[in-house]
Amino acid sequence: MPFVNIKITREGATPEQKARLIQGVTDLLTDILGKNPQTTVVVIDEVDTDNWGIGGETVTVRRKRENSRTK
Amino acid sequence: MPFVNIKITREGATPEQKARLIQGVTDLLTDILGKNPQTTVVVIDEVDTDNWGIGGETVTVRRKRENSRTK
Amino acid sequence: MPFVNIKITREGATPEQKARLIQGVTDLLTDILGKNPQTTVVVIDEVDTDNWGIGGETVTVRRKRENSRTK
Amino acid sequence: MPFVNIKITREGATPEQKARLIQGVTDLLTDILGKNPQTTVVVIDEVDTDNWGIGGETVTVRRKRENSRTK
Amino acid sequence: MPFVNIKITREGATPEQKARLIQGVTDLLTDILGKNPQTTVVVIDEVDTDNWGIGGETVTVRRKRENSRTK
Amino acid sequence: MPFVNIKITREGATPEQKARLIQGVTDLLTDILGKNPQTTVVVIDEVDTDNWGIGGETVTVRRKRENSRTK
Repeated sequence: MPFVNIKITREGATPEQKARLIQGVTDLLTDILGKNPQTTVVVIDEVDTDNWGIGGETVTVRRKRENSRTK
Repeated sequence: MPFVNIKITREGATPEQKARLIQGVTDLLTDILGKNPQTTVVVIDEVDTDNWGIGGETVTVRRKRENSRTK
Repeated sequence: MPFVNIKITREGATPEQKARLIQGVTDLLTDILGKNPQTTVVVIDEVDTDNWGIGGETVTVRRKRENSRTK
Repeated sequence: MPFVNIKITREGATPEQKARLIQGVTDLLTDILGKNPQTTVVVIDEVDTDNWGIGGETVTVRRKRENSRTK
Repeated sequence: MPFVNIKITREGATPEQKARLIQGVTDLLTDILGKNPQTTVVVIDEVDTDNWGIGGETVTVRRKRENSRTK
Repeated sequence: MPFVNIKITREGATPEQKARLIQGVTDLLTDILGKNPQTTVVVIDEVDTDNWGIGGETVTVRRKRENSRTK
């Protein structure tokens, strides 16, 4: 019956990775809290980097700076 | 003033169905709790089936199994 | 499988009212979208009036002003 | 460490406006509550007007009525 | 940088269980998606059984029926 | 019409601080995006430190370590 919402930036997570994440989180809730997996819901939100801020700036800006540093 | 968030899988809900849902939920809050409909907000999130898990698997996988059983 | 989150101010909703709201929203999702009620989850958050803002002020302040007007 | 989720209708907010909003909210949390901006996360959800209801109707319907009044 | 919100009914999860859940979910995001654990936030909401509905009824009602069946 | 949800740890924010936060966020949405403050809702969730994780550990554990370092 638990409900889990995972928010990540949209930066190329594959269907396989998302399926593993869903399976893993559901297993944790069963193993640690004895929750019924059949009614455990996990929803993943992938958010554009323009719409995700950390440290007062968007991830878009942060990624550009990181990339320019690498070059 | 209430805020309602409805999360469903993105599987073809029409604008008309979503409008009925918004009207219905707003009416319930007015009828049962006496809330002011003018400031009642309802937001519907439609989530890709790859990003929605139940029973430890994605809805994409579940729908494929259901469809193969039907054939 | 839908997930619904209803946020209201904590101002005395009774268990009976909340039960009616849960039943009503679940019925709407079944009737309008054909969703399975057995896996439809509705979570109600009751929020202190100090923590709910509308029009740039808390509901605590708004209620005080409304009450003083009534007298 | 705070987490802020801002939901607005998808009606043309620019990357610059969203960046200003993220910066502004992060500054408020630092200035008012002394929160560390480096771990303050702000996520903006832009929601289709078909999926946003207020006053029991969708914003799509509301905008049409407003536009027809203007003409 | 991911943000995870876990909603469960308030039915006696211990601080130790919640700490294990937080550690487990953070590890999954690091292992599967390569996310930085230092900025991964996990928030657990424990919800009163009067405020959690499934199958159109509150968990309070469901638990009472389950208990009466057991006797 | 925007909806903003601010999640912070429950560590003593005063009603005055929360009122300033609500006013500030509402002003930002008016100033930057032209949103109507009268229908802008801001909800603050204060979360117990046992229920908030960052870096794979609860804030309760983190605060204890920080305090022991200070002594």
